Amino acid sequence: MTIMEMFELGTARRSRGRTVTEADIVLHAGQSGDFYPHHMDAEFAKTLPGGQRIAHGTLILSIAVGLLAGEVDENAVSYGYDRVRFVKPVHIGDTITSRSAITATRPYPKRPDEFGIVEETVEVRNQRGEIVLAFVHCYLVSTHSKERQQ
Amino acid sequence: MTIMEMFELGTARRSRGRTVTEADIVLHAGQSGDFYPHHMDAEFAKTLPGGQRIAHGTLILSIAVGLLAGEVDENAVSYGYDRVRFVKPVHIGDTITSRSAITATRPYPKRPDEFGIVEETVEVRNQRGEIVLAFVHCYLVSTHSKERQQ
Amino acid sequence: MTIMEMFELGTARRSRGRTVTEADIVLHAGQSGDFYPHHMDAEFAKTLPGGQRIAHGTLILSIAVGLLAGEVDENAVSYGYDRVRFVKPVHIGDTITSRSAITATRPYPKRPDEFGIVEETVEVRNQRGEIVLAFVHCYLVSTHSKERQQ
Amino acid sequence: MTIMEMFELGTARRSRGRTVTEADIVLHAGQSGDFYPHHMDAEFAKTLPGGQRIAHGTLILSIAVGLLAGEVDENAVSYGYDRVRFVKPVHIGDTITSRSAITATRPYPKRPDEFGIVEETVEVRNQRGEIVLAFVHCYLVSTHSKERQQ
Amino acid sequence: MTIMEMFELGTARRSRGRTVTEADIVLHAGQSGDFYPHHMDAEFAKTLPGGQRIAHGTLILSIAVGLLAGEVDENAVSYGYDRVRFVKPVHIGDTITSRSAITATRPYPKRPDEFGIVEETVEVRNQRGEIVLAFVHCYLVSTHSKERQQ
Amino acid sequence: MTIMEMFELGTARRSRGRTVTEADIVLHAGQSGDFYPHHMDAEFAKTLPGGQRIAHGTLILSIAVGLLAGEVDENAVSYGYDRVRFVKPVHIGDTITSRSAITATRPYPKRPDEFGIVEETVEVRNQRGEIVLAFVHCYLVSTHSKERQQ
Repeated sequence: MTIMEMFELGTARRSRGRTVTEADIVLHAGQSGDFYPHHMDAEFAKTLPGGQRIAHGTLILSIAVGLLAGEVDENAVSYGYDRVRFVKPVHIGDTITSRSAITATRPYPKRPDEFGIVEETVEVRNQRGEIVLAFVHCYLVSTHSKERQQ
Repeated sequence: MTIMEMFELGTARRSRGRTVTEADIVLHAGQSGDFYPHHMDAEFAKTLPGGQRIAHGTLILSIAVGLLAGEVDENAVSYGYDRVRFVKPVHIGDTITSRSAITATRPYPKRPDEFGIVEETVEVRNQRGEIVLAFVHCYLVSTHSKERQQ
Repeated sequence: MTIMEMFELGTARRSRGRTVTEADIVLHAGQSGDFYPHHMDAEFAKTLPGGQRIAHGTLILSIAVGLLAGEVDENAVSYGYDRVRFVKPVHIGDTITSRSAITATRPYPKRPDEFGIVEETVEVRNQRGEIVLAFVHCYLVSTHSKERQQ
Repeated sequence: MTIMEMFELGTARRSRGRTVTEADIVLHAGQSGDFYPHHMDAEFAKTLPGGQRIAHGTLILSIAVGLLAGEVDENAVSYGYDRVRFVKPVHIGDTITSRSAITATRPYPKRPDEFGIVEETVEVRNQRGEIVLAFVHCYLVSTHSKERQQ
Repeated sequence: MTIMEMFELGTARRSRGRTVTEADIVLHAGQSGDFYPHHMDAEFAKTLPGGQRIAHGTLILSIAVGLLAGEVDENAVSYGYDRVRFVKPVHIGDTITSRSAITATRPYPKRPDEFGIVEETVEVRNQRGEIVLAFVHCYLVSTHSKERQQ
Repeated sequence: MTIMEMFELGTARRSRGRTVTEADIVLHAGQSGDFYPHHMDAEFAKTLPGGQRIAHGTLILSIAVGLLAGEVDENAVSYGYDRVRFVKPVHIGDTITSRSAITATRPYPKRPDEFGIVEETVEVRNQRGEIVLAFVHCYLVSTHSKERQQ
């Protein structure tokens, strides 16, 4: 079976929503080690456009990927991301949702008989419907599918 | 001043090391909501190449970005990432280090008089010197530098 | 000594109060893996009766048990819970308190000479005095008490 | 539609596995406030049967419930638990899996035309197939099903 | 009543034990923002005396104070610490215990009729009985004791 | 080289700001095991001067030390603290900043040829410029400086 046969272009998914909290930002600073005042200093943040602390880009990306994690084919492994763009800041209390569609499939150049690359384009929107983050999630997929009992 | 004058191509940085722990994976599953058995089920992980749980890609990216966070020009905001590639798995107990170099600068197309794009290419290596992650971190930089008192 | 001699029926305890925070809910979602929108999506929660996110039942039970943890006889091990009932939702900012009383003691059927079962009925109330959770905590108690130096 | 028509007796589910880590115990002590030496003191734990620290019962219950959280009908709300029994201790590094089956359905006595009670019996096993926890999860289900777009 | 009458010199306390885990160090780095390689880089730590990562001083102090927190008179507020000395490093897996004694009481100079200072000298030992931390915890105590119902 | 030559008296540092959040207090209670109602019970806290929950002293000390952690000479190890004084309560939402100056240097009595003691006096202020915490951080410094490549 070819990668084109396994994944149909245009197949779309939409995640649940998730509210980004102050606790998420505090935990992400602790995990990433990034304590920039944009994220962690409410006084400094008053001087920014928007006047509030901004969630880390890597936090929003991590949540956005996780929101779609439950439903992916387990034969696919995460290969990388392309064109990750932080379009608008996410503030404390914003609720984000991920939507995606399969936008490209192609053989994996190094081992085209065994693996394919699937590109899933993801848009992350806030509760006002504004895109805050967009990226392409690249999966490496075995074309020798193995059934895995859950 | 132009963006080319502000950032010299080739300027390199090297971060401290950081050991990726089981606690980091547990916290990242909790933050991202991604509880895939590759990350969270040691029994399942015995069936993977390597035979161990694998750190989330977004965890390694978050740490890698954070390791370099202390030293960036505060006039630069994170704009996005390009060509993020998870080259090798990171296991519990691996110690990673980020190295980077400025690899491109160019005017920001939409407002070329005010902003420039700076591309910093980042390589993340484990304790054996193997590259585990590579990506390009894109910054948007104001060319009207503002001194900001810390 | 029999179990009836060790635990007097009616012996009552009252815990300190503890405010349930947004951070508690975020951490509990991360620990349990339950990211239901009732707990984690403030926009969705506007459509619920009460109009707010609701703490996980297992979070409230965990805190309620913990609030009484400091004072139990160390010879007793937690054996289980009966009739756990989530009577009212707990919202962010509610402060809960556990009260309990010993309501039953009986020999442990499998080894009646060595162990007894003690039932402690627990009521958890919010700051308005409303019961939010009720349950019976069952302990298995050795009737050969061992002094344990702390 | 009656509750009997909505839920078929015997319908079974099986969760992914999840390894219980030292970090989970540390986080659960912090969340519950239960720092009993059985959970938090490795030296004391050498004197216990098994010779190791034991995960909190409320931690195992929280994970066990969460492991099944992704798949439940959203019209059902968690109503309580019955006959929660901690059958065997769970140690650091054990991997647990939840299996369940619908074992009873009945009208909700207070408002039998609108709600039903569904009992899902859950067994939690470790990587050796031993039952470590068993309980009945009671849901309150609206018999006026509302479609909810995800 | 004077402060001397309220607190008897020599009154001693001994806490439970608590094992310091890798998760504690990871969480404390995240809370304090101190990601020094002594705490967070297992490869670097091989070059230290002891050859292992070392717990943050503020982590050990925080745990040591917390281990005694359950039992203090609620009329006393923490006023400060004197002569905090990190005598020996604490490594992952070490189990620490706090012991203390009241070593001084005196009127509070600014308002001697209302408040007194109580000094509690604390020694923290590891599982080998070695002192790892010593300090004096100073409390400010109201001499107009208020009964507070718990 | 003597310790006096290495550290110039009066050398001052000023940290970034950091907002103390409810999540920080919840995490610190979990880490320290100190769930005193002053920190964790918003209802009780209404009876305190200020009417709000108060951050743990050890939390503020941990953050204050961490805020200065990035910039210290790596040849210096933390030796202890003197005269730690919690001058004013820190509430949820307060933003703190650490300022310090080298106020004393002296040979280390036990091995004066090899080590010196450096005292750095630290003041922690909130967003209104009020001192909330003051202490002296004592470092033990090798006078045989070793260059360490980062």
